[in-house]
Amino acid sequence: MDYILKKDDIEAMSGLAKTHFLNDNGKRINKSLGDATGLKNIGFHLIEVEPGHESTEYHVHLYEDECVYVLDGTATVIIDEQDYEVSAGDFIGYPAGGLPHSMKNTGSVTLRCLVAGQRLAFDIADYPRQNKRIYRYDGNADVAEHQHLSHPTQGSK
Amino acid sequence: MDYILKKDDIEAMSGLAKTHFLNDNGKRINKSLGDATGLKNIGFHLIEVEPGHESTEYHVHLYEDECVYVLDGTATVIIDEQDYEVSAGDFIGYPAGGLPHSMKNTGSVTLRCLVAGQRLAFDIADYPRQNKRIYRYDGNADVAEHQHLSHPTQGSK
Amino acid sequence: MDYILKKDDIEAMSGLAKTHFLNDNGKRINKSLGDATGLKNIGFHLIEVEPGHESTEYHVHLYEDECVYVLDGTATVIIDEQDYEVSAGDFIGYPAGGLPHSMKNTGSVTLRCLVAGQRLAFDIADYPRQNKRIYRYDGNADVAEHQHLSHPTQGSK
Amino acid sequence: MDYILKKDDIEAMSGLAKTHFLNDNGKRINKSLGDATGLKNIGFHLIEVEPGHESTEYHVHLYEDECVYVLDGTATVIIDEQDYEVSAGDFIGYPAGGLPHSMKNTGSVTLRCLVAGQRLAFDIADYPRQNKRIYRYDGNADVAEHQHLSHPTQGSK
Repeated sequence: MDYILKKDDIEAMSGLAKTHFLNDNGKRINKSLGDATGLKNIGFHLIEVEPGHESTEYHVHLYEDECVYVLDGTATVIIDEQDYEVSAGDFIGYPAGGLPHSMKNTGSVTLRCLVAGQRLAFDIADYPRQNKRIYRYDGNADVAEHQHLSHPTQGSK
Repeated sequence: MDYILKKDDIEAMSGLAKTHFLNDNGKRINKSLGDATGLKNIGFHLIEVEPGHESTEYHVHLYEDECVYVLDGTATVIIDEQDYEVSAGDFIGYPAGGLPHSMKNTGSVTLRCLVAGQRLAFDIADYPRQNKRIYRYDGNADVAEHQHLSHPTQGSK
Repeated sequence: MDYILKKDDIEAMSGLAKTHFLNDNGKRINKSLGDATGLKNIGFHLIEVEPGHESTEYHVHLYEDECVYVLDGTATVIIDEQDYEVSAGDFIGYPAGGLPHSMKNTGSVTLRCLVAGQRLAFDIADYPRQNKRIYRYDGNADVAEHQHLSHPTQGSK
Repeated sequence: MDYILKKDDIEAMSGLAKTHFLNDNGKRINKSLGDATGLKNIGFHLIEVEPGHESTEYHVHLYEDECVYVLDGTATVIIDEQDYEVSAGDFIGYPAGGLPHSMKNTGSVTLRCLVAGQRLAFDIADYPRQNKRIYRYDGNADVAEHQHLSHPTQGSK
């Protein structure tokens, strides 16, 4: 039955080992439960992060809402350069256009989280620690440093 | 910190008692973790369903992906009139435009699930057991019986 | 050259004879200049309406902007049941969600207009004189009488 | 009556004098008939370009369809570096993601055209002669040179 993934099926998934393209310490195993059941417009993933690793690079999406529900382990979440401890049963919501954030496994066991988010045809995300911006559109990605972007004033179209 | 809901905070939420407008037995307590943290474009809820109750009315969304991750309890999921048992750690993905489905707490303890889904400006959903269709658009809802809908052939616009 | 339609090419197009599905007197020849050049997301048409005929049925779109630029002839435009005379060089803009409207060739020569509008994946339009509503979605169309629509109050999703 | 602009009203509009931010010779008077009647989701403009001037900078939109209908005058349209002559009654459709293009008044009288196009929340346009790309999103604009953009390969999200 393609719609249902049993707990054992999920544990048996090998997942995809991902290292963030801007952060060598941003390493996770990504099991996309949504992809496995045919979801296209939202991402729903079970991620596993080992102690000492981060889930991604400190970032913020301008258009896509995302959120995290912690299943196991403990982590430090950094939001707008402030630290917060989270553990099993905690939820973090990141509204589109909000504050930059990252998450690091600061415990001694594997951090397991559910991560959900929009999958828009278009999004922009900023990486404030790197002064970089990414434009994602229909499977493509353009990355620029903020210093190389200019901002002409234009009338309405 | 508005971005984070601790496990205790979530347990302390009273939630919203909802009865489905087409199913008196579709009763749940809905704690919208997404709303509480400012998410606007996806819904992310912790729902609680008591033994014998259903989470909603048997339905399918034409445009919105939705999915369920079971935290506690056991349930019978009905997909396209077939029964499937699910319990803690199982995941169910319902792609937009897929098969109709419902979920009933067939166990003896409270069923607790995470439910995530798109929040589009527009969606259509069908209730096959009632021969009804709902059009939702920007906060409005129109419900019609399929027998009252006609389908003119029109050229492109 | 597919991007360009010369004046002579446009005149030579036979166009599509359309009668509105709710109005036997709503008859026009529709030359879709946009379709002929590969536009997908906006409609841009040169329409021809003979004396005594209307271009469509009195209606309003809830989501799609549309507009008309008169090239030749004279017409009576009805907006919110008020009559207005228009002729060559006049423009009428119909914002989405605005007032219902129709146009009739009340002159003695062929009325020729450019008609432009959005082509959304989804739209709703009302036909106030018929108490009907049409839902258009990805090439499908559902038509209901307003008396057959109910409006349940639902919580956020 | 806000929905209707009579020919005399349009002639009396002063319009907005625009010079393209990347082309000093890209000068036009822009009378936005759509804005004047409350359209928000499509642009519909009557533009006037004097002899020797271009309407804009050679460009292509990745997401927005646009098109032009010539009312008066003669122009050379350049599409993918090929020249084409156009005059009153000709139509040019530019599908999103198609070929780059520009238009120059190569006649001796004012060029008058109707220009229609989508107004998306997000678009990308390329200026091939300048090796520049513009990202427009909700009223903002970021411009980058193609040499400053990198294209990381990323997995699905």
